[in-house]
Amino acid sequence: MTAFAATPKESTAVEQDAFVAAVAVKLKDFLAEKSALLAGISPDSLVLVDSIAALATGGKRMRALLCYWGWRGAGGAPDAAEVIMAGAALELFQAAALIHDDIIDRSDTRRGGPSVHRQFGTLHAANGWSLDEERFGHAAAILAGDLCLSFSEEMFAAIGTGPDSRARAVFNLMRTEVMAGQYLDILEEVSGPAKPHSTAVARAAAIIRFKSAKYSSEHPLVLGGALAGASPEFLEGYSAFALPLGEAFQLRDDVLGVFGDPAQTGKPAGDDLREGKRTVLVGLTIDAAGETDREFVDSHLGRQDLSDAEIDKLCSIIVGSGALAGTEAMISELSASAFAALDGLPIDDEVSAALSALGRGAVSRTS
Amino acid sequence: MTAFAATPKESTAVEQDAFVAAVAVKLKDFLAEKSALLAGISPDSLVLVDSIAALATGGKRMRALLCYWGWRGAGGAPDAAEVIMAGAALELFQAAALIHDDIIDRSDTRRGGPSVHRQFGTLHAANGWSLDEERFGHAAAILAGDLCLSFSEEMFAAIGTGPDSRARAVFNLMRTEVMAGQYLDILEEVSGPAKPHSTAVARAAAIIRFKSAKYSSEHPLVLGGALAGASPEFLEGYSAFALPLGEAFQLRDDVLGVFGDPAQTGKPAGDDLREGKRTVLVGLTIDAAGETDREFVDSHLGRQDLSDAEIDKLCSIIVGSGALAGTEAMISELSASAFAALDGLPIDDEVSAALSALGRGAVSRTS
Repeated sequence: MTAFAATPKESTAVEQDAFVAAVAVKLKDFLAEKSALLAGISPDSLVLVDSIAALATGGKRMRALLCYWGWRGAGGAPDAAEVIMAGAALELFQAAALIHDDIIDRSDTRRGGPSVHRQFGTLHAANGWSLDEERFGHAAAILAGDLCLSFSEEMFAAIGTGPDSRARAVFNLMRTEVMAGQYLDILEEVSGPAKPHSTAVARAAAIIRFKSAKYSSEHPLVLGGALAGASPEFLEGYSAFALPLGEAFQLRDDVLGVFGDPAQTGKPAGDDLREGKRTVLVGLTIDAAGETDREFVDSHLGRQDLSDAEIDKLCSIIVGSGALAGTEAMISELSASAFAALDGLPIDDEVSAALSALGRGAVSRTS
Repeated sequence: MTAFAATPKESTAVEQDAFVAAVAVKLKDFLAEKSALLAGISPDSLVLVDSIAALATGGKRMRALLCYWGWRGAGGAPDAAEVIMAGAALELFQAAALIHDDIIDRSDTRRGGPSVHRQFGTLHAANGWSLDEERFGHAAAILAGDLCLSFSEEMFAAIGTGPDSRARAVFNLMRTEVMAGQYLDILEEVSGPAKPHSTAVARAAAIIRFKSAKYSSEHPLVLGGALAGASPEFLEGYSAFALPLGEAFQLRDDVLGVFGDPAQTGKPAGDDLREGKRTVLVGLTIDAAGETDREFVDSHLGRQDLSDAEIDKLCSIIVGSGALAGTEAMISELSASAFAALDGLPIDDEVSAALSALGRGAVSRTS
């Protein structure tokens, strides 16, 4: 697996930075236009765009970068307007998903700051407005997310791919799959405990495939290739790399959601346990743990009021059951599969090295 | 105002029915495709499309019809695929807005049946799932609304208007304006009581312009004209008709939200008062009422637990202040302005009669 050892050249890093900067400029200009439009409706509505801008200008830009290298690998030119707009559309879509996810998960924080519904709740409290602060925060964040989702689509449509293009089909499929995947995720939180322990891992694996791996990894890369006019066979090669990579990425996320350092993740310790996420990590635990431990997990997972001691006990059950080691083994296996597929792709060494670096960062990160 | 007297010919009604049927078929086929896609992800996710289908196949189809006659008035051919798809996109957008609106407004019912978040809450309860029923209902409905919003865009993009077309610009503007207008609406609910009584009507009027009149009336009509390639001047004529019509429509809606017959509106009596909607009707009331009545309104509006006696008292304050009569006068004035503009439009008598009939239905309806 030479790709594992490949290091991007300095010129690659410069090119990648230029793309990230171009996406940032595109987003800034687009959101400035929207602010001008909203100012004409009412200055009071500007806070909607502000909340979107704060989210859309942060983050790792992993989806945009996968899209970029997918484009370059399929012969697209550096600095092309199409791929900059596609990257910006993916970032706006992700911002919309985060805004609504944080309402659904009741997450108070995002990247170390308050989540959007909390920002609106604070605005309510600071102004001493009437009625309920939390309810206003949720309502405003639902609307901010809807607006951001529309912006994402507006940006994508501005590329002008044509209605029957492969890129449009990928963009449409991405949205439907991730929303279905998110639904399966919240469904599992409430219906998982009553379902057989023996299928918990399989159910969790299906969720991360649609909610995360396809959305965050496979579709962005394939979208870039499709924009550049790649053949279906070529794009299948992209999928063989990016799907297992995305699964490994999400498994890493699940591990960090329980065992990550709050200072690095920007989320409280054990946050995923309070949210009740029934991940592969949890699935492996309840499949392997003894009955007493399993009952403790089932009765404590998803309780917002979990104490630190209860979080600690859940963590030690997860480790003791072998689920943490099992998840790490899956991450290794999926990574190996992804990088083997990467080696087989008919792409430039430069693009291969860039994708390899992105992939390694995704599966071995700490935040 | 001859348009007021015009009655659509039978052939017009037949044509309109054919369009409505074609939109219904388009929606049915589109949603069947999506069901097949979701079935492949997991049969458990099919309920998302079911909830959308139930909403998207009901309703008055006023937006789709305005779009259709806007298209026909500008020279578009009957039965054209573009306008059927545009109509379907508008209906899907409206369904998405309703799903999220009902969460925001905490409305348990929609068109006489349970709202989408209540459907998911009931699904949770019926299966005896764990954790919180209401929270699951809201989360699932946020996702169903997001999916529906994406479907709307997917349908519109399939028309293939091109990225720089006027129709695309109208579709984009419509979405941004309605979401900003909805935000101003929820903001007014919480911040209105602390703002000057003298500007309450002006604030409410701005909200119905962006939240309702432009979205539900002006933009659909202009969209149809733009799709058919009408000039900017021609489309301005459409706006001069449809904007005041839409404002009159929303004022009628506000009256029905307080004084409508629950058997006809499908909403509980006084529903808007419990939701705390600060409409023009309410603005006129607090501007004209004496201090004691005004304080009663400010302290009771938006309380979920309003008793029937409190609702009755609020209603009699509204009537006693002259606000109901004032609102009816505004409806008459706006209607007159709209129909005068309609008379001046350079469109076929058939189209004029169809628009007149739609307009009359909108402002004099009882449900």
